[in-house]
Amino acid sequence: MSQAWAVSITPFDAQGRLDEAATRAHLRRLAASGIGVYVGSSNAGEGFTLDPGERDALFALAVDELKGKVPVRAGGCEPQSVASAQAYLQAAARAGLDAAHLFQIDTGHAGPPTLAEIERYYDEVLAAADIPVVISNYPAMGYGLAPDLVGRLLARHPQIVAVRDAGGDTGYLRELAAVCAGRASVYTGGVRSLANALFHGSSGFLSAEANLAPALAVSVVEAFAQGDLPRLRAEHEKLFRLSRFVMKFGGSAGRGIKLLLNELGLPGGTLRTPRIALSAEEAGAMLRAWHALDIRI
Amino acid sequence: MSQAWAVSITPFDAQGRLDEAATRAHLRRLAASGIGVYVGSSNAGEGFTLDPGERDALFALAVDELKGKVPVRAGGCEPQSVASAQAYLQAAARAGLDAAHLFQIDTGHAGPPTLAEIERYYDEVLAAADIPVVISNYPAMGYGLAPDLVGRLLARHPQIVAVRDAGGDTGYLRELAAVCAGRASVYTGGVRSLANALFHGSSGFLSAEANLAPALAVSVVEAFAQGDLPRLRAEHEKLFRLSRFVMKFGGSAGRGIKLLLNELGLPGGTLRTPRIALSAEEAGAMLRAWHALDIRI
Amino acid sequence: MSQAWAVSITPFDAQGRLDEAATRAHLRRLAASGIGVYVGSSNAGEGFTLDPGERDALFALAVDELKGKVPVRAGGCEPQSVASAQAYLQAAARAGLDAAHLFQIDTGHAGPPTLAEIERYYDEVLAAADIPVVISNYPAMGYGLAPDLVGRLLARHPQIVAVRDAGGDTGYLRELAAVCAGRASVYTGGVRSLANALFHGSSGFLSAEANLAPALAVSVVEAFAQGDLPRLRAEHEKLFRLSRFVMKFGGSAGRGIKLLLNELGLPGGTLRTPRIALSAEEAGAMLRAWHALDIRI
Amino acid sequence: MSQAWAVSITPFDAQGRLDEAATRAHLRRLAASGIGVYVGSSNAGEGFTLDPGERDALFALAVDELKGKVPVRAGGCEPQSVASAQAYLQAAARAGLDAAHLFQIDTGHAGPPTLAEIERYYDEVLAAADIPVVISNYPAMGYGLAPDLVGRLLARHPQIVAVRDAGGDTGYLRELAAVCAGRASVYTGGVRSLANALFHGSSGFLSAEANLAPALAVSVVEAFAQGDLPRLRAEHEKLFRLSRFVMKFGGSAGRGIKLLLNELGLPGGTLRTPRIALSAEEAGAMLRAWHALDIRI
Repeated sequence: MSQAWAVSITPFDAQGRLDEAATRAHLRRLAASGIGVYVGSSNAGEGFTLDPGERDALFALAVDELKGKVPVRAGGCEPQSVASAQAYLQAAARAGLDAAHLFQIDTGHAGPPTLAEIERYYDEVLAAADIPVVISNYPAMGYGLAPDLVGRLLARHPQIVAVRDAGGDTGYLRELAAVCAGRASVYTGGVRSLANALFHGSSGFLSAEANLAPALAVSVVEAFAQGDLPRLRAEHEKLFRLSRFVMKFGGSAGRGIKLLLNELGLPGGTLRTPRIALSAEEAGAMLRAWHALDIRI
Repeated sequence: MSQAWAVSITPFDAQGRLDEAATRAHLRRLAASGIGVYVGSSNAGEGFTLDPGERDALFALAVDELKGKVPVRAGGCEPQSVASAQAYLQAAARAGLDAAHLFQIDTGHAGPPTLAEIERYYDEVLAAADIPVVISNYPAMGYGLAPDLVGRLLARHPQIVAVRDAGGDTGYLRELAAVCAGRASVYTGGVRSLANALFHGSSGFLSAEANLAPALAVSVVEAFAQGDLPRLRAEHEKLFRLSRFVMKFGGSAGRGIKLLLNELGLPGGTLRTPRIALSAEEAGAMLRAWHALDIRI
Repeated sequence: MSQAWAVSITPFDAQGRLDEAATRAHLRRLAASGIGVYVGSSNAGEGFTLDPGERDALFALAVDELKGKVPVRAGGCEPQSVASAQAYLQAAARAGLDAAHLFQIDTGHAGPPTLAEIERYYDEVLAAADIPVVISNYPAMGYGLAPDLVGRLLARHPQIVAVRDAGGDTGYLRELAAVCAGRASVYTGGVRSLANALFHGSSGFLSAEANLAPALAVSVVEAFAQGDLPRLRAEHEKLFRLSRFVMKFGGSAGRGIKLLLNELGLPGGTLRTPRIALSAEEAGAMLRAWHALDIRI
Repeated sequence: MSQAWAVSITPFDAQGRLDEAATRAHLRRLAASGIGVYVGSSNAGEGFTLDPGERDALFALAVDELKGKVPVRAGGCEPQSVASAQAYLQAAARAGLDAAHLFQIDTGHAGPPTLAEIERYYDEVLAAADIPVVISNYPAMGYGLAPDLVGRLLARHPQIVAVRDAGGDTGYLRELAAVCAGRASVYTGGVRSLANALFHGSSGFLSAEANLAPALAVSVVEAFAQGDLPRLRAEHEKLFRLSRFVMKFGGSAGRGIKLLLNELGLPGGTLRTPRIALSAEEAGAMLRAWHALDIRI
């Protein structure tokens, strides 16, 4: 199984409603590359804008399209309370997704939780979870998950099947990989530090770029697994250029990605408020840059 | 009117339910000092744990206890979508609060919104707001509100009555004060940089420390307004020591504040998950440190 | 004795030589305000460009002009070795200066010294110093002096008469003030956080702005000492605006300060390589901004 | 030619004098691996403690031992003035070294030079340099060399043969590599982010770890050049572990490296003040950790 993962966009229609047909078509396109899929994430998936009914509808059609073909998971939205985290995992379990991503609790301007509070959060949320769970280290939230804490959580909670690291610190990644070895997968987020991540113990990676070029993301992981350095360098270079392109034109939040997919005749759909797509001028520049990239999708 | 503000705790009972009697008693105690009050904030007020019914009940009793005596406002919880921000302000308006605090939109790991998206957020949320609104600059969220953006929002949205700065940058505060002069109040958050804030244009400040010593917070602002440097220095020193004490024993999130209030025979109540109160040992140390502080409350 | 200090510029002539007449005139102008003076600092004093003979000449004329009138001290240049620090203090002692500023050792890209190495540095340098010494905390150098380390150094080295803090952290300043109480003065560097510094234990402050307005710097410290809040606020505001002006037009390194002094008919002199004075256009803008500042010097 | 470089230690004897025999033996050991050598750097080479006579003696014996066998260069010490930078390059040229490393000018607490001042510094120093020069980007110094500035310097100064990046930012490295392509080599400093560096355009790297295991450093670069991913991963992993070991036991400043070399019967020598070697207890732990590393040297 490939360890490349797409953080899928969620296509909406011109009225801002979940566009089921476009979403299904997009997911089928991802699945054709063999990539794993996270749906409804708060970033590329615009999960914060989905009300519970829409979220459940998205989960249902993702299961319908992908289950058994490629791994399909709930992308996760930063929860602000224990109760909302529990509700999210229960929705993912009800829908029959393969697993769900559980973010750290977001305590906003209250400052980071104490170590005991972090453990209480995971203990109370995971005790109520009837689905495999991916936890993650997001130091940008003001705190992270120390490797020894991850070790304790892995020992207490068999539901945890993987840990995502969004921090980018090599030393942390190595310790995390050591704690997870033989027990859980380790993923890194993004392309920016991918070479380091692969060399220091990441089993795979997630990206929003894979909405555009899922086969390329899969190819990087395969080349690394096969020990093919020339192919790894070439494919990594393409993926990195794609990543710089995405960052330049709207970022992983989909401002440019959806537009570009639409322009290319692929299902992309619209954005929900407050996100705003690139202007016509920016979109023109993006399209020119896209053709200069010369990436086959 | 004093420009000192308390970010009130929300007392819960032993079963974790909103403790209306304790909450009323605490708010009355605050009001007796003349301090303004923010209720249900996501930090000291544990607002993220309140479901809509509890939030409305809290707003209602705060209006009942405080309205017309001291200013009483909705404390604000970081919203993750336009819709939830709109719903929050509508709840505050329905309850009859004097004003409501509207946080920046929290986009989580999606990265900061673009400038146009920030404006879209405020435009769409404030257009639906039938209540005076306090906006705020929270750079810890990954982005802030540039002074010229604040200026445009002030021009378009008469509901905005004040701007809170939680950033601590002196240059920013001065520019903000210039933009708000004669149009909106400027508050700073916290005690850490209070002398600088007062000297560079802050009209007042908010603190969780005021749950313990509201009269002291009021006194600092009064001494400054009266030009009384010896009293300002003395009161500021006391307040700063209180702030260090709170930071050492559980922080502004209430882990120690509620315990201490209970120990002193004042209404404090319990915490909600995942927050955990200080251990018995820590509480003992806190109590000894409290008596050493020698602050009259 | 006032605890305001000027970090003096070093006027050079058109050929880049130390301009003794201009330097004497500048120092006399400073002394007339009653401010203390640091000469030859690596920042405003361009000390890194002085060869040993020039440095000694500068020290000699500063002693000649200022000694017995206002305190006069060697400004200090970041030393890269124990030997060069020893040589610097010996030169200051030979010249008869009242005291000398000893920077932390600058270990460049080697990373910070260990705690034992920091102590070794001060022990070996101060053992050879026959002059009162001001030490300083410069965290921008990659490490600082923890308050308990300062305490140990104060106990072992009676030469230390003051400690400068260039870090700007309030908590640090308070601990430093506690360690130094009754034993050594505490100064802060710069105007940016001056209100906080005065409220948290600083005995005084140093600034390059005092090259332009020495009396204003003295007045701020006096107003604070006299408990005169209205005057303190007014003078502090003027000084802060002056500081923003200096930062905008060339900074504390003298790119604009020297030009402006020359324009005002006061001794300023030229800069040494690689520093470059403001362009004619920038100088024009500076002069207009200067007049708008309306500061009497 | 291998693009692995050792930043050599400088062995001193028990009296703290330059130990010529040990230095020669150490340099011969390095040369046997085929690695390039930087001598007298301010970090591993303790260059700040060398007076001009010692520096020249070190340069002379390095030329004598290494010239024509492996590339041999002056390691560089952060200069605090144009004059001292000129003197350094002239000393390197006189000695007959193959090239010299020129650091950015270190302006200490004066804050970063302006862009025009940075260019003036390089123009004045390089105009006087009769030797090939390696320049470097050291953002930890408070400023760095923007790629377009590097491009202008490369166009004006044919002496520049390489650029070192000590910043670790991938985007910067890629832009630097684009500017230098076909004109100058690009090196990165250290092992921490080496996989990323190799994938994003670095021609090679420098390390203090190579004092212990020069052949291993060479092997990593060779494996990358040969496209041998399994060997690259294995050798990179060994080198990374060695790097963590060095960082844990005294760092690149030689506190542990010299001790360990002595323990292994290789020439290491003593440290100069204020550096202090590991304690006997730390040295014991280091030796045990060394054997556990199982690196053949």
